[in-house]
Amino acid sequence: MQESAAAVGPVARLIEEFHKLPGIGPKSAQRLAYHVLRAPAAEARALADAIIEARERVTLCSRCQYLTDTDPCRFCSDPQRDRATVCVVEEPLDVLAIERSGRYRGLYHVLHGVISPMDGIGPEDLKVGELLDRLRSGEVREVIVATNPSLEGEATAMYLARLLRPLGVRVTRLARGLPMGADIEYADDVTIARALEGRQEL
Amino acid sequence: MQESAAAVGPVARLIEEFHKLPGIGPKSAQRLAYHVLRAPAAEARALADAIIEARERVTLCSRCQYLTDTDPCRFCSDPQRDRATVCVVEEPLDVLAIERSGRYRGLYHVLHGVISPMDGIGPEDLKVGELLDRLRSGEVREVIVATNPSLEGEATAMYLARLLRPLGVRVTRLARGLPMGADIEYADDVTIARALEGRQEL
Repeated sequence: MQESAAAVGPVARLIEEFHKLPGIGPKSAQRLAYHVLRAPAAEARALADAIIEARERVTLCSRCQYLTDTDPCRFCSDPQRDRATVCVVEEPLDVLAIERSGRYRGLYHVLHGVISPMDGIGPEDLKVGELLDRLRSGEVREVIVATNPSLEGEATAMYLARLLRPLGVRVTRLARGLPMGADIEYADDVTIARALEGRQEL
Repeated sequence: MQESAAAVGPVARLIEEFHKLPGIGPKSAQRLAYHVLRAPAAEARALADAIIEARERVTLCSRCQYLTDTDPCRFCSDPQRDRATVCVVEEPLDVLAIERSGRYRGLYHVLHGVISPMDGIGPEDLKVGELLDRLRSGEVREVIVATNPSLEGEATAMYLARLLRPLGVRVTRLARGLPMGADIEYADDVTIARALEGRQEL
């Protein structure tokens, strides 16, 4: 990288570390590094501390596998939430997205990935065993599979449905259809097909 | 921020700190935070260390005001560079951009900003006094003003030209014109005007 040639030592190292983060290209990494160098020392220190503190204090909830600094996490320990429903998601960020909808009051289960034979990822690499353990308590009546509407997400949903139905639990999937604000003219074939299949009475 | 409501404690703090960085919106901040939480502990630690180390070791070069961990910086202490020419830039990143061109062998001077009456920034808020001090040695024969071709950049260039010419130093400005790969059809009026003014013999 030519940038490293011009910025040597600690600056180059900082640029490099920022560059390792997802979605941060070499130019953004430079901008972030120079921001940190020009920001008040307290602000730079706060960022470094937040990274260290988060890594030290945040673990996976032993029940739902969500990232948390308390165990069980705030969802699993909240008596107001419906313990009969578990929403299965791929990643922790999906939990935040569903929470933002304000329409879900059940618990979560984070798989930390999807089944992807191409990448050599099978159910044993995901938090599937932990999900089965939770269902054995008999408290859960419905599992909403909220994996992404991608090939891997669909395959994972199918796998979970086959695995969980024999346990007497209802397995559902988030509706697939046209996103809000979409233009049918530009929607892809699969989305339109799903929207037709899932059409509802008015 | 709704995100903070769902992610409490150290995770929320980390998201918040990332969100303070330039160009990092709430979604990117979440992605970065979750990456740091899932990355190997050594990688997270390396990022935090790089931030602390850079803040502790990097200062401004006492001559050119570029960010450096040695004083004078690698440009000012390089005997191979032409000490009679000083290129004045707004920000440290501009130095890297000019270095990448591979066409400049002189020294630099970083103003750390531009004159901007709208933001209450005058010459006294920039490293202009330091530039004058450097010129007093009599070693410098040309100052290339490489501030951005923006309103503020042009005003700063004009100011510097008026200030420096009486010292007997040649003051030049980077050429303004059509950027490489540009399409004249879509170029703005001012760029075309500048390109006409600066037209060269073929």
